[in-house]
Amino acid sequence: SWKGAPEFKGEGGWTFKPRGRINLDAGFVNAPDSTSANDGFGSEARRIRLGVQGSMPGGFGYKVEADLAGDEVALTDAILTYKDGDLKLTAGQHNNFQSLEELSSSLNTSFIERAAFTDAFGFQRRVGVSAEFSPNDVLIQAGLFTGNSADLPAKDWSADGRFVYMPKLGSTQLHLGASAHLRSLESGSTVRYRQRPLVHFTSDRFINTGNLSADSEFGLGLEAAAISGPFHVSAETYWQKVDRGPALANPTFFGGSIEAGYFLTKGDSRGYKGGTFDRVKPANPVGEGGIGAVQINARYDHLDLNDAGIIGGTQNSYQASLIWTMTDYTRLLINYARLNYDDAALPAAGGNRSYSVDAVGIRAQIDF
Amino acid sequence: SWKGAPEFKGEGGWTFKPRGRINLDAGFVNAPDSTSANDGFGSEARRIRLGVQGSMPGGFGYKVEADLAGDEVALTDAILTYKDGDLKLTAGQHNNFQSLEELSSSLNTSFIERAAFTDAFGFQRRVGVSAEFSPNDVLIQAGLFTGNSADLPAKDWSADGRFVYMPKLGSTQLHLGASAHLRSLESGSTVRYRQRPLVHFTSDRFINTGNLSADSEFGLGLEAAAISGPFHVSAETYWQKVDRGPALANPTFFGGSIEAGYFLTKGDSRGYKGGTFDRVKPANPVGEGGIGAVQINARYDHLDLNDAGIIGGTQNSYQASLIWTMTDYTRLLINYARLNYDDAALPAAGGNRSYSVDAVGIRAQIDF
Amino acid sequence: SWKGAPEFKGEGGWTFKPRGRINLDAGFVNAPDSTSANDGFGSEARRIRLGVQGSMPGGFGYKVEADLAGDEVALTDAILTYKDGDLKLTAGQHNNFQSLEELSSSLNTSFIERAAFTDAFGFQRRVGVSAEFSPNDVLIQAGLFTGNSADLPAKDWSADGRFVYMPKLGSTQLHLGASAHLRSLESGSTVRYRQRPLVHFTSDRFINTGNLSADSEFGLGLEAAAISGPFHVSAETYWQKVDRGPALANPTFFGGSIEAGYFLTKGDSRGYKGGTFDRVKPANPVGEGGIGAVQINARYDHLDLNDAGIIGGTQNSYQASLIWTMTDYTRLLINYARLNYDDAALPAAGGNRSYSVDAVGIRAQIDF
Repeated sequence: SWKGAPEFKGEGGWTFKPRGRINLDAGFVNAPDSTSANDGFGSEARRIRLGVQGSMPGGFGYKVEADLAGDEVALTDAILTYKDGDLKLTAGQHNNFQSLEELSSSLNTSFIERAAFTDAFGFQRRVGVSAEFSPNDVLIQAGLFTGNSADLPAKDWSADGRFVYMPKLGSTQLHLGASAHLRSLESGSTVRYRQRPLVHFTSDRFINTGNLSADSEFGLGLEAAAISGPFHVSAETYWQKVDRGPALANPTFFGGSIEAGYFLTKGDSRGYKGGTFDRVKPANPVGEGGIGAVQINARYDHLDLNDAGIIGGTQNSYQASLIWTMTDYTRLLINYARLNYDDAALPAAGGNRSYSVDAVGIRAQIDF
Repeated sequence: SWKGAPEFKGEGGWTFKPRGRINLDAGFVNAPDSTSANDGFGSEARRIRLGVQGSMPGGFGYKVEADLAGDEVALTDAILTYKDGDLKLTAGQHNNFQSLEELSSSLNTSFIERAAFTDAFGFQRRVGVSAEFSPNDVLIQAGLFTGNSADLPAKDWSADGRFVYMPKLGSTQLHLGASAHLRSLESGSTVRYRQRPLVHFTSDRFINTGNLSADSEFGLGLEAAAISGPFHVSAETYWQKVDRGPALANPTFFGGSIEAGYFLTKGDSRGYKGGTFDRVKPANPVGEGGIGAVQINARYDHLDLNDAGIIGGTQNSYQASLIWTMTDYTRLLINYARLNYDDAALPAAGGNRSYSVDAVGIRAQIDF
Repeated sequence: SWKGAPEFKGEGGWTFKPRGRINLDAGFVNAPDSTSANDGFGSEARRIRLGVQGSMPGGFGYKVEADLAGDEVALTDAILTYKDGDLKLTAGQHNNFQSLEELSSSLNTSFIERAAFTDAFGFQRRVGVSAEFSPNDVLIQAGLFTGNSADLPAKDWSADGRFVYMPKLGSTQLHLGASAHLRSLESGSTVRYRQRPLVHFTSDRFINTGNLSADSEFGLGLEAAAISGPFHVSAETYWQKVDRGPALANPTFFGGSIEAGYFLTKGDSRGYKGGTFDRVKPANPVGEGGIGAVQINARYDHLDLNDAGIIGGTQNSYQASLIWTMTDYTRLLINYARLNYDDAALPAAGGNRSYSVDAVGIRAQIDF
């Protein structure tokens, strides 16, 4: 059978599927010239990934994928798994259950980049072991993690857990979730929270705490979403507390976003599976007499990196996107953001740190 | 079906094929000792590539390939495509229609390295969007490109176009082409034109302009080739003009080559497809009672990097190659070059910059 | 057919198989605090490999695999091959016939790391050409090699040969082998022999010659092993002589190990094929009503880096391992080592260089 690429199946539980994705981005950033931000046109190969996944008799499975964009290798998932009924055990590099949007594939998000807090608070895959239990409408995930494989060996470790309740009420898919994250950092560590203005091809961050010495982090996230026919709404909040040791104040930073979307094309709906957003499968795709699925989305995205004497800045971002999903495996996206900063990390003329930035990003996407 | 590796096909337009190649090179360079060039024996894994390509219902397709030689990742093609009849649209990293030999796969060239001008003038894949239209015997290609994905984000951009007329006269395949390239460089950029002595495993360049400050480049290429049974002939010229701004003279550098080849084995011929040389498919391959295809080639290759006060040197190279194509997917090549330099970048004893270099290169090749 | 991943076959000799492996390691090192070694907990993605292999009509074949652990690319095998009956020719990056354990896949070893001498004496894949001849119970391997592909171009070369006699006496598989290695180093080279304490996730080496100027190396290895039902025993010795030129003494360093193992589960045995240990295939794997294969192993491992005035230290290591092979393609391993050092490279309190280190390592493994 075909899932972008062919999935091969053999008797006894054997499966094998190559996988990959291409995300090509371009766009513009418009910031006050006096910030000396490198604005204007930008572009990048955002993600160029190749990998494989498979399963074996006995309940075992694996997934290995690497991102090659920028001519650098970055492992994404590199896991071996064991499944028995509703239970799944995972070892290797994978996401530590950070948030609904972070756990949803970048193939399926409503904007070309996720909400500001997901990058700002350092969400990334880490090497660890985890268990997932999913009876009926409930999903429980918990794991112990150390660092990203590129940073090992390391003395960092974290305990992470997430709970999701995902009932289907009539034709409406509901999602309610919460996650908690305690991370102990190697002695002498620093953390830095910062974020780009929606588009990834710029390296300027207008909001940035700079390096903070830190002993540990504690994160708490709340998730809510609903999908009903062509409509969806999704909201998340996340508090990140930094323990800086006995001599320093301990700031708690906050981020959150709320988005709503609507399909203009008849019969289309956002996909949802296993506690995350899944692929949009157009009712009438290109190539079968249709024009694919067309979706519009709006989002308010908030990030506050000011607390306990740390002035990292605040970012309030108003965003709109238009997504054309031609087929199950191809998309074109365009999105615009108006980002309002206070206490911005890059001062404008006269030391002004309250200003606005505009960003436009487009993306061409295919996966297999 | 098998094309080196299996090509999987599904209903509605699904295809998927893994792909890769191995090029193993060794040889010798003999330069005047007084140049202190690192001559003598050399070797390298010239290309170690793995990738995938596929197509999907609706006319979409993709190709992603990376070179891993030297334990470094370099993306080659990373594209998504849309085809409709004679029209093909491409987005991502691909060649910007530079020349017949550059666009022909390195698997199918007559020498282990292409003509000197192709590297010298910085031909490489770049991220961009392009359209290709190919009715009957005509091929029209045009695109807008920025930099190689490893160099993004960048402010460079180029407009590139190529026209090919490729009629079949009786059993003779003709090829006539021209391409033009205007490239605008980011403020403060430099360009450097230089080339190795035929073999790639040495890092010495005896011809080299050094860094030149540059605002833009304009390139113009002409292509002519013919294939008739066991014979082929191919000739190309390329002018590269550098705009260095109002205060400096604008040099135009020139390169060109002409080659001819002949198969000693009966029934063999160079492949040609879609405006580039294609694979040789031996009439009597190894494994089916034959000895494969044996081809001899001769080439004169010229590169002139002297103009408008820039003294980069001139290189006149006389080359011969012997290619044994055992099967459709395996080749052994040996080639020799006598390279005569004037105004060479590396001075020999007494400041002498007019001398000769000999180079021998062999290659073992397999692809799939 | 399935060999972890599907193996595709076509008429005339076509085959293609994706391949890969995941090794996830964690554990502890306990060294005297006064050595300031970075001990305690450690972990790493030891191997994350993806690759392909295949064969073609005419007797040709290829294998390309890369390790992506640590977000760095390291080519492992990158070869093209030609087979005709008992003869096999190989070109590209491959092992130069160093030892039984080095040539046995890391998937099939009895401990998570091989005997100390294999890393200490710099065994690694190198680019070269080799021939292998294997009539009946005899295996003859010989080749010429230069450096690892990451280090090319280089002027190093080596001549390497190995002879194996591997008769089957009743149900007992015997293995007797010897290899010799002469390696000429580029002028001005140094060599350094050193080794980690069994586990790879630490970068501390308690035994280390430091850099030694060297003109050439000569290595001699002896191999003996037997597999009889659930039992196996294996022993190897290796002498590495360094020629440091006329003005310096030429040390000969020595390493060797002996191991024995036993399967607690009925019907299980170590695999053996073509002069190396092969995969364990549990008689009653997980998923087919069994619990897989359980094996216990003990090893004495010796490394002596003291000779001719060089004081690199000696390491005597007593090791035990427990391996659970759930299925043909999945394993969990735990091993413990007590390592006794004299003349250790890292001094403890009071300049004491005779002390002990304990190491515990676990590994989760899957391959395809």
